[in-house]
Parts: sequence; C-alpha cells; structure tokens
Amino acid sequence: MMEIIERLKVKGITLTPQRIAIVEFLGKSVAHPTVEDIHKAIKRKYPTMSMATVYSTLRLLKELGEIQELSIMKRGKACFDPNPKLHHHFLCRKCGKILDMDVDCPIIKKGWVSGCRVEEAQAYLYGVCSECLKKEQSAKE
Amino acid sequence: MMEIIERLKVKGITLTPQRIAIVEFLGKSVAHPTVEDIHKAIKRKYPTMSMATVYSTLRLLKELGEIQELSIMKRGKACFDPNPKLHHHFLCRKCGKILDMDVDCPIIKKGWVSGCRVEEAQAYLYGVCSECLKKEQSAKE
Repeated sequence: MMEIIERLKVKGITLTPQRIAIVEFLGKSVAHPTVEDIHKAIKRKYPTMSMATVYSTLRLLKELGEIQELSIMKRGKACFDPNPKLHHHFLCRKCGKILDMDVDCPIIKKGWVSGCRVEEAQAYLYGVCSECLKKEQSAKE
Repeated sequence: MMEIIERLKVKGITLTPQRIAIVEFLGKSVAHPTVEDIHKAIKRKYPTMSMATVYSTLRLLKELGEIQELSIMKRGKACFDPNPKLHHHFLCRKCGKILDMDVDCPIIKKGWVSGCRVEEAQAYLYGVCSECLKKEQSAKE
C-alpha cells in the first residue's frame, strides 16, 4: 500500500488525508467495493467526505493505472479492484458476490479472432456461484 | 433513440437539452467514445456544457441500464457503448480502435468454471487489429 502512496507522491499528486484513506481502504479490500461501499466505509472516519470526492479520487487512481474499474456491474453499480492487472471476474447473480477467476482463456490460447491478433483478455462471467448452487441443491433435497 | 427518451420520461428523469444531446450523440456513436470525446462533441452545440454534466448524465444512463461503460480503457480512459447488452470487445493497441467482436465464448459453451455455473460472459480482448497487422506486413515487405 505504501508503494502506491510513494508512486502518487512521485507523480506530484496532492495526498489529502481523504485520498490516503480511499487508497488504504481499497488496498485492504477483496470484495470489489462499489463507490457507495467506499463512501460508507470512509465516512466513519471522515464524516464530511462527499461522494464527489470518492468519485474524483477513484477516477484519478484509475487514470494513473493504480486500480481498475470493473464493468461487471454489482447490483447495477460499477465496482473497483485494487489490482490493475488484467484478470477474470465472476459475478454471482444470486448473492451478488464478485470472485476473481483463475481460468485459462481459450481465445488467448488460440491467439486469433476475426483476423485480429489477441494478446491479453479480461472476461466478466455471470452466473451462480458454487456456494449458492449448494444452497439450491440442499433446498431441493 | 426516441425509445430511450420515452423510457427516461416514463422513469421521471428530467430531460434537459444537454441530457438529450448526450443521449442522441451516444445513439449515433459506433466508436465507443470516452467522456472527453462526448464532451468535445456536445460542446459545439452547448458551449457551457461541463465535464461534470457529462459524467453525471453517463452515470445516470448507466445506472438505468440504457448504456454500458466499458472497462477496456481506450488510452487509459473508460469509454461508453450505447448497447447495454453483454457482448465482446477488442481493443487494438496500435490504433486504439475498439471493435465489437462476435465470437462464441468457449466458457459459455462449457457452462462451468471452478464449480460455478456460467450463464453469460463479456470479454475484453487486447491485441492488434487486422488492419494494423496488414500495415505491419506491408512495411516488412
């Protein structure tokens, strides 16, 4: 986490306590929070923190390549991943959980699609997670 | 396009001329514009249009499910697609073009990943498009 703070300093970014709080919250986060989740968490320490500040800080971190915004749309809202590297995600439509997915992409293995050379991929997968499937199964039995 | 306007009216959304201009611009757009592209285009007709208005209108349309924000990051910036349905995209790293990709997803065919049932997918593919590959080839010859 301190590494990001150092990189932001080097880039000349003004580091207000609110911005640092957002960076720290994202760094600890594994649940792919939405803007509202982040705002709610940070407001506990900084009650005057506005949604506009959260949006602008996220936009800045995104444009600097420090985080990524996922377009997987958790309950209709965009959410954020502190890992900016391309990787796959799965959204469970039952419980709303977003999981990182370690899956070999068959398109990447092939390397070509419609005459284009494919080098990297990030997939958003939608369905029902294994935990919810188990619950469905138990309810049936 | 008029259909979106009607749906927004039904949902009780205030339709300022600026909002209508953004909706109309997106409706005609096939190039997956960024916020800056949209702002630049709309400013010609509405010189006082602010980036904040563009951001807030896009956020509204996104939350209403009328458009989608792509996280494919065109030159580091998010871009927008007037088609909210899940479909695949390809970003050419040479020319920066974003293409809609009609490709059968092998994960969907299989239907399962890590114990999760996969029903739908949207992939972001990155590489070099066929046009740029041809140019590369011609340069070599």
